[in-house]
Amino acid sequence: MFTRKGILFVISGPSGVGKGTVRSTLMPLVEDIHVSVSATTRPPREGEIDGQDYFFTDPARFQQMIDNDELLEWALVYGNLYGTPKEYVTTMLSQGNDVLLEIDIQGALQVKEKMPEGVFIFIAPPTIEELSRRLCGRGNDSEQSIQIRLAACQEEMAHMKYYDYIVVNDRIEDAVEKVRSIITAERCKRKNLNLG
Amino acid sequence: MFTRKGILFVISGPSGVGKGTVRSTLMPLVEDIHVSVSATTRPPREGEIDGQDYFFTDPARFQQMIDNDELLEWALVYGNLYGTPKEYVTTMLSQGNDVLLEIDIQGALQVKEKMPEGVFIFIAPPTIEELSRRLCGRGNDSEQSIQIRLAACQEEMAHMKYYDYIVVNDRIEDAVEKVRSIITAERCKRKNLNLG
Repeated sequence: MFTRKGILFVISGPSGVGKGTVRSTLMPLVEDIHVSVSATTRPPREGEIDGQDYFFTDPARFQQMIDNDELLEWALVYGNLYGTPKEYVTTMLSQGNDVLLEIDIQGALQVKEKMPEGVFIFIAPPTIEELSRRLCGRGNDSEQSIQIRLAACQEEMAHMKYYDYIVVNDRIEDAVEKVRSIITAERCKRKNLNLG
Repeated sequence: MFTRKGILFVISGPSGVGKGTVRSTLMPLVEDIHVSVSATTRPPREGEIDGQDYFFTDPARFQQMIDNDELLEWALVYGNLYGTPKEYVTTMLSQGNDVLLEIDIQGALQVKEKMPEGVFIFIAPPTIEELSRRLCGRGNDSEQSIQIRLAACQEEMAHMKYYDYIVVNDRIEDAVEKVRSIITAERCKRKNLNLG
């Protein structure tokens, strides 16, 4: 009955909160949503595929993307550069398609400045202590790296106030169901429909 | 991790659109929501239970409720008076509980004036023609009554612009799932959480 405007969904939260798992579990459950692939100078982890998980790039090319204003947001995170190519997102949205970004908090706040009409979802840990346990459990970070991340996390939690939705990632199935519901609800919002 | 403010959900739409079926199908699927029971001077239909479907009352008592400002909204619909007792709703919300109202469009607009922070959901027919077919199919209305309702429906559709969400009731299961998602999403909204 109605056509719709394209909606930008931004999933974000502290490092280690499980936002990547939320995104990958969510994707098969949602129809008609397009994931933006980030560019990064970080080396691929085992199993990661170029152009699917990330566009793996070198610092010189990344600098060029910044200079040419090709990035919607970019950030230096733990010594590596991450960024979201702008053209894919704006093209999809202008064609009435929904786009999902999964990015860190610094990046999300940059996107919010440029695209305040986006839907900003903060994935929160049940407690700071639980986040600590998860980071230790990951097993590929040094003790010092974990301490730096925890301090950053406490600061990052203060940024919740800029988000539209807060989803506590207690059980992954519940968190995914909540994000799925947020997407369904936003698609029913009157302001996102072309009432003609 | 967070406590929440009570949220008022208002399900509304044209007569015959199926909002009563949406509400009754939805209720067993949603935890912790309280349905407000309306007062009416309309005689009970077969199977309807006093105090559960409606508070069936006479015009004199209804007038008293209006005079005492006991109603959140009231309306004269097809010769009968309908109204929402105020105290139940405000008490529930102040205790942090969610309340669901299923009311006609005139009533919803009155509630929106008094409680603009409510979540207003418009149940829309797939088309005006489909609404006509449904009203005819109901089998307990005269031809003239159907014509009056259809004309009212076209006017009522113009009120969609006052609602937060539009849910097209094409398949009842889909409409219920969308309203369920809206409730879940609103419960995750940052502005409805006490971030402390």
